[in-house]
Amino acid sequence: MSEKNITMPVSADEQVNSNQTRRSFLRKSVAVAGGAVIAAAAAGRASAGAQVTEPLAIPPTNKILGRGVVSVPYGLPSKYEAHVVRRNVEWLTPDTIASISFTPLQDLEGIITPNGLHFERYHGGAVDIDPSTHRLVVHGLVDKPMIFTIEDLKRFPQKAAFWFLECPANGAMEWRGVQMDSLQFTHGMISCSEWIGVSLLDLMKAVGVKKEATWFYGEGADGAALQRSVPLPGAKDQFGKPLPEFDTNEIYKDVIVAYAQNGEALRPENGYPIRLIVPGCEANLSVKYLRRIKFVDKPLVTYQETRHYTDGMPDGRFRQYTLVNEANSVVTFPCPDKKMSGKGSYEIRGLAWTGRGKVKAVDVSVDGGKTWKEAKLLDPVFSKCLTRFTLPWEWDGKEALVMSRVTDETGYVQPTLRQLREQRGSNSIYHKNSIQTWKVLPNGEVHNVQIENL
Amino acid sequence: MSEKNITMPVSADEQVNSNQTRRSFLRKSVAVAGGAVIAAAAAGRASAGAQVTEPLAIPPTNKILGRGVVSVPYGLPSKYEAHVVRRNVEWLTPDTIASISFTPLQDLEGIITPNGLHFERYHGGAVDIDPSTHRLVVHGLVDKPMIFTIEDLKRFPQKAAFWFLECPANGAMEWRGVQMDSLQFTHGMISCSEWIGVSLLDLMKAVGVKKEATWFYGEGADGAALQRSVPLPGAKDQFGKPLPEFDTNEIYKDVIVAYAQNGEALRPENGYPIRLIVPGCEANLSVKYLRRIKFVDKPLVTYQETRHYTDGMPDGRFRQYTLVNEANSVVTFPCPDKKMSGKGSYEIRGLAWTGRGKVKAVDVSVDGGKTWKEAKLLDPVFSKCLTRFTLPWEWDGKEALVMSRVTDETGYVQPTLRQLREQRGSNSIYHKNSIQTWKVLPNGEVHNVQIENL
Repeated sequence: MSEKNITMPVSADEQVNSNQTRRSFLRKSVAVAGGAVIAAAAAGRASAGAQVTEPLAIPPTNKILGRGVVSVPYGLPSKYEAHVVRRNVEWLTPDTIASISFTPLQDLEGIITPNGLHFERYHGGAVDIDPSTHRLVVHGLVDKPMIFTIEDLKRFPQKAAFWFLECPANGAMEWRGVQMDSLQFTHGMISCSEWIGVSLLDLMKAVGVKKEATWFYGEGADGAALQRSVPLPGAKDQFGKPLPEFDTNEIYKDVIVAYAQNGEALRPENGYPIRLIVPGCEANLSVKYLRRIKFVDKPLVTYQETRHYTDGMPDGRFRQYTLVNEANSVVTFPCPDKKMSGKGSYEIRGLAWTGRGKVKAVDVSVDGGKTWKEAKLLDPVFSKCLTRFTLPWEWDGKEALVMSRVTDETGYVQPTLRQLREQRGSNSIYHKNSIQTWKVLPNGEVHNVQIENL
Repeated sequence: MSEKNITMPVSADEQVNSNQTRRSFLRKSVAVAGGAVIAAAAAGRASAGAQVTEPLAIPPTNKILGRGVVSVPYGLPSKYEAHVVRRNVEWLTPDTIASISFTPLQDLEGIITPNGLHFERYHGGAVDIDPSTHRLVVHGLVDKPMIFTIEDLKRFPQKAAFWFLECPANGAMEWRGVQMDSLQFTHGMISCSEWIGVSLLDLMKAVGVKKEATWFYGEGADGAALQRSVPLPGAKDQFGKPLPEFDTNEIYKDVIVAYAQNGEALRPENGYPIRLIVPGCEANLSVKYLRRIKFVDKPLVTYQETRHYTDGMPDGRFRQYTLVNEANSVVTFPCPDKKMSGKGSYEIRGLAWTGRGKVKAVDVSVDGGKTWKEAKLLDPVFSKCLTRFTLPWEWDGKEALVMSRVTDETGYVQPTLRQLREQRGSNSIYHKNSIQTWKVLPNGEVHNVQIENL
């Protein structure tokens, strides 16, 4: 993402074991500090709403006839929601065709990202592919290489699930010391959809994958022809060494070739007509405009696996194939994009996620991490999916430091930035999942801050 | 829906007990007839896809650079999906502002309906309401009538769930003998979303609803000013008699005032900025453009509760306040809008739903109901939500009669049209939930048929 500022040669002849990095963040105990600071908001919430004292005027819309059906055969948002759009950062990349746009998380509720607001990441721009001529080839270490039309793929058993996709560069600007005063830009490289398609396992059966295959890669039909290696059981790195992540053996089981997203066909920005979905892993593995899957016995170590998507470590070496999105969370209200409007009853809301399964718990602090209280997780809590949390908050109108901290089902606890830097220094771009702090001012403004020693 | 053809005076001085109607459809046994006719499709599915025999040409899209990020700040479907839109039936209503459009179920996968494809039903057209001036009043039999801004409502605890909305007229044309040869028109008055808002229970606490309140109604801020009564515990009809439905006491517990749908703000077609959602009940109870909720001690018996939304019975009387959408299902592939392309391996797919809770099982027949086989229910199976079912099918290329039959968690089994007519005659418009049959021809065409005596 920050490619114009930073050179990133792969200097590692041996990978740093990210399991060691990860281990220190495993939650030793589920105990949560007492939450005296966050008073449970009273039922009734006297401060939201006002007593009716006089008759209400009839609104003008009660006196007119509106638009008929199919005035908009494919509907769009209200004109009053025109501010709810994807945005990019103009200085971030030299050109928009190798760039990123951000989902407006501050305006979203629940766990679904509307398809029109899914974040974008291109290495060569979005293309329009005719599904009637598009083909998927599955080949390499297989008994019978095969070619499929989109209609062929739709004849396979269907697999559907709710999964997030997150760019590993989500939060990258924070890593590099650029504190964007906006939730859209600090965390907006994540979206969540119901993805529908064909299980990779079924395609593997159809072509007869040979035992020697320990990796596969997808390749896109766009100008970038993005290629990313995905491990199969027994995968080793290009030096014959085990992969750092203990559960890379499990990743492929969930993989699908997706042709639909939130009900309808994929959008062009999301790889229409088909893309890989590699749930729980950095989104660049979920290759868009998918034209082939090749089974191989080692990782590709291509441009995108060296120039990008490696993690610079304090000792000058680089972690590679750190594929899984570690647990992360953020408060979506309040946030810099959504001010408070006077003291009284509110609900703190946020999103939590982990590439390793389900969110187990989210703690919230309003005093900069001195005390924490466990938030409520709203149903549904799906694996590798955004999870919505809420906590009532009676705001006294004074300055507050609002934070969230997720624990996932493996026991991993979201680290502070200091903890993350102790492990990984400050040369990194990717996989920034540390606790975010929002400072609420008495006037209701909210700002992105970094608390010293946290 | 068919308002231009049919007059519907309320002639009932006593309602027909719809519980009696319903009882005969309760499933006596969960046993399913053996499914010899439907062979389990072989893993590998040799007929989908072809072996690769020559090198594949590089697609032209690999050789160009595409569109950059935020070329479309709010994204839209591919130009190749322009046929996937809501449609209306021009002869059905005299004007489109009191009419309906249909969701293209034939093109949708999974359980989510994209907001742009949610079916529309207006009595006075869709209006654009400025959320900054819109207010919700909650009054009537309450201790403290209150008025809320949209921002006020967002400060209450948030409730979110995946629920379908179905117009009770879904299938109405079939009732009246018009066999539309299209899934979009036979069943497209249903959509499904994640709805997010404020629980009615919280609003009831805020205003202090009095014990005497046994009903409430919502009213819209549009030209139709739609009003619909919703029962609270102890509700009786306008003659002081108990309501026919045993579980009307439970309906209000799930009700929300929704401000978001599938992540973003409601669409204008769906009541922006706020609407009621009354899960499991005919969608007209979920009043759009909601401007007030009034607590009362009897039903309103308004125009929309007499002129529309009553069920003509064989004895000339009318059922009223039959609010719950009974269990229903339909095969979405194959269907008249989606032909078969030669014999071989397929997956029969469909949707099932019930206003009374969860779908328990779906049986599928390919021989016109002689034999049935239990389909697989795809996760998630939520209460009052669309449920996706699938069944592998090895099509021999011969004529087939494809049907689905749902059983819900109360044991209710979806009836045949004959069974429905035995109970309810042929004067009805609403609540047509009988088994749908698609006839597959050897050439792959699929047609809407009614099998004699079924």
